Amino acid sequence: MEGDICDPDRAAYPRIFPPREAGESDHQPFERCVNFPVSVVLPAAGTGERTGLQTPKQFCSFLGRPLISYTIQAFERVSWIQSIVVVVLKENMALMTDIIQRFQHRKVRVVPGGSTRHRSICSGVLALGELEGEESHAAVQPKVVIIHDAVRPFVEADFLYKIAMAAKEQGAAGAIRPLVSTVIATTSEGYLDHSLDRAKYRASEMPQGFTYDVIYQAYQRCTESDFDFGTECLHLALQYCGVSAKLIEGPPTLWKVTYKRDLAAAESIIKETLSRSACVVTGASAQAVTLAGTLQKAARTWDMELNVIPDLKGDNGSYLLTEWNFILVSGSLPCLSEVEAILTDFKAANRAPLHPFVIVWVHLSSSDELSISRTMAEQVAIMDLASAAKLQNIFLYGIQIHQSKIPLEVYMRALGSLCGNLTSLHRKKPRNHSPSQ
Amino acid sequence: MEGDICDPDRAAYPRIFPPREAGESDHQPFERCVNFPVSVVLPAAGTGERTGLQTPKQFCSFLGRPLISYTIQAFERVSWIQSIVVVVLKENMALMTDIIQRFQHRKVRVVPGGSTRHRSICSGVLALGELEGEESHAAVQPKVVIIHDAVRPFVEADFLYKIAMAAKEQGAAGAIRPLVSTVIATTSEGYLDHSLDRAKYRASEMPQGFTYDVIYQAYQRCTESDFDFGTECLHLALQYCGVSAKLIEGPPTLWKVTYKRDLAAAESIIKETLSRSACVVTGASAQAVTLAGTLQKAARTWDMELNVIPDLKGDNGSYLLTEWNFILVSGSLPCLSEVEAILTDFKAANRAPLHPFVIVWVHLSSSDELSISRTMAEQVAIMDLASAAKLQNIFLYGIQIHQSKIPLEVYMRALGSLCGNLTSLHRKKPRNHSPSQ
Repeated sequence: MEGDICDPDRAAYPRIFPPREAGESDHQPFERCVNFPVSVVLPAAGTGERTGLQTPKQFCSFLGRPLISYTIQAFERVSWIQSIVVVVLKENMALMTDIIQRFQHRKVRVVPGGSTRHRSICSGVLALGELEGEESHAAVQPKVVIIHDAVRPFVEADFLYKIAMAAKEQGAAGAIRPLVSTVIATTSEGYLDHSLDRAKYRASEMPQGFTYDVIYQAYQRCTESDFDFGTECLHLALQYCGVSAKLIEGPPTLWKVTYKRDLAAAESIIKETLSRSACVVTGASAQAVTLAGTLQKAARTWDMELNVIPDLKGDNGSYLLTEWNFILVSGSLPCLSEVEAILTDFKAANRAPLHPFVIVWVHLSSSDELSISRTMAEQVAIMDLASAAKLQNIFLYGIQIHQSKIPLEVYMRALGSLCGNLTSLHRKKPRNHSPSQ
Repeated sequence: MEGDICDPDRAAYPRIFPPREAGESDHQPFERCVNFPVSVVLPAAGTGERTGLQTPKQFCSFLGRPLISYTIQAFERVSWIQSIVVVVLKENMALMTDIIQRFQHRKVRVVPGGSTRHRSICSGVLALGELEGEESHAAVQPKVVIIHDAVRPFVEADFLYKIAMAAKEQGAAGAIRPLVSTVIATTSEGYLDHSLDRAKYRASEMPQGFTYDVIYQAYQRCTESDFDFGTECLHLALQYCGVSAKLIEGPPTLWKVTYKRDLAAAESIIKETLSRSACVVTGASAQAVTLAGTLQKAARTWDMELNVIPDLKGDNGSYLLTEWNFILVSGSLPCLSEVEAILTDFKAANRAPLHPFVIVWVHLSSSDELSISRTMAEQVAIMDLASAAKLQNIFLYGIQIHQSKIPLEVYMRALGSLCGNLTSLHRKKPRNHSPSQ
């Protein structure tokens, strides 16, 4: 069972990176896989009082999607994570279930949380131990449990790997970051007692990892006071299981959405990452599939992740909910209706287009197949379609490739420069926010 | 000398709050004044490596203005602060001097900094002690020195008052905030040693305040090692002067722009505050001055700060550089040329209008003065002017008040609702960033 956690069949999950050769790219290292079962507990029962907002921050929407959905996605795209338990307040169970359905999350179970952070995490850990083998999850009891905050959506696969490996080896592992401010001890009257040497201390962050046995036993043995007032799982592992956690310095991307101002920062980062991935839809044409493969290889040099799929039907429909860039490759007998179909799919997905989508239609042809007049007519038709799409915040571009005339690399370069421009495109504001309206 | 620090003459400085009665408004408490001289040192010699940007973060621009200019403004609007010393790297002296001239800052001197934070602060403190009585500053040696970070632009007057008062009484005072993360001690091999009890520790933040004698002596007595590796002025005051600082919990607005993500958060806050102040230009008409006074009073209930000035000439020209909202009150013989003049002034100020300005033209008239046809012609003319202004990102609104017909309060309410809408207006993106262009 353990051996097939990185089974290629799992690549059907949306947005999983295909395993790559080591050293292929500095920017996108291949996904390192663990060979033991790992599950995740996401406590999300907080009320978010520090943001000063009515909605707890994990449910605040960014470009039409709640923050917690981005965090879940960060784990879903890691092929070796078998299941995710989200712990929410009882009154948010329905909301959370709706989010999972709406954004077609897999591997996720929702359980009701306790009144404190530790009680919630404990509920999550116990839920992982229930080996009822639910049909869709088919999860085994995990060897390692990763605990993370729902409001830290930018955690990266490579760091999760480090935490999982260290947790298996050591029993417990946790992310740390340098202290931003000096930490001082205060007297009971509110005066400076002493300041700590910053070099000797670190901020404890998330994610943390534990072997299932360690975190289970820690919660079995700890006191009511720990449940009510404790903040640090690493501390419980040390106190009740004698396990001294391995500490690993994490990247700045581990930060936690805490204050209202962090919402703006999170939105800005989400927009910046929008340009880093695209979905390539090939249809059935062999020629298109070949081109898509070449594109996928080239994309690594543009620091982009391309997911190649034949169509947007079935499971692949979830790309309509999570992806912002689509490259539609048409074979030698292209037809405008393919573009129209994807526009219809967008409407059906009912995604509020508060932010522009980009569709690039790559149309393969050899010059002897088409008359100039047909080409011209097509160009006019696609421009009309593009004007109409723009009103719905969809930017439609067309690239026609006459294979017999110009080397493919020339088109690749053109496409690369277009994709390079996605960043500035996604930084722009939606049409209906413009003061000129 | 000490007594006149809150002298009404100083109200000529831009954006100083007029002292108000206690309890007049919950939202905008009256400015509490100290009765001793206070000066500020702003160390700004950092290179901002944590943002990962080439420009140090204090010089990053927000809506066309560098971050440090917002921080300076936060101190300038406090009437009882007599002078500000900004400490920058030698190579940034010209840049900083240019910023001060361009945004017409007063009370500010620039001095070259040292190689570490403590050396820079020390340079600033020594500069405050040089009693050359520079003409424009006319500052005396301060009783209290406030030290703040150039990258914490959102510090509020009321908190500065608390720090100054506690510093005078205690010798030293500093801002603290609750810890966001648990702080842990690590072993030399990178394992958890122990975690600190969050209740007993605080993050030390800025601003901090010291009597001039305490901070001066602390720097006279401290070692080269303190200068090179120390981080905490409060610690030096304790170690070398035996002064245990009073610690005061500050609001979340004290946060420090540290990482790249913080730039987005800062911009969002700056935009939100744009709607909280406006400049009322009255001209010479007595009627307009009276109306402006009524407006100013009413504005407090809308949580807005109004600065009333006769025109934008001389010193008042600085409002063209710092203010985003203008209310132009015309007397009983209004003339479109007044509006045209302010538009010309905007152009002359050469402010890059990447963000919309709002001008509300309030036009007083009594119905018997004007024929309906003249009124109509004027309405057409102002609409034409508004269309032209919109192209330059200036939103121009006109309100005509027929005093004899409708009670003034009705218009006040209308104006209040317009000002209430400023928030959503300033949240919008500039015209030339719109994807529809």
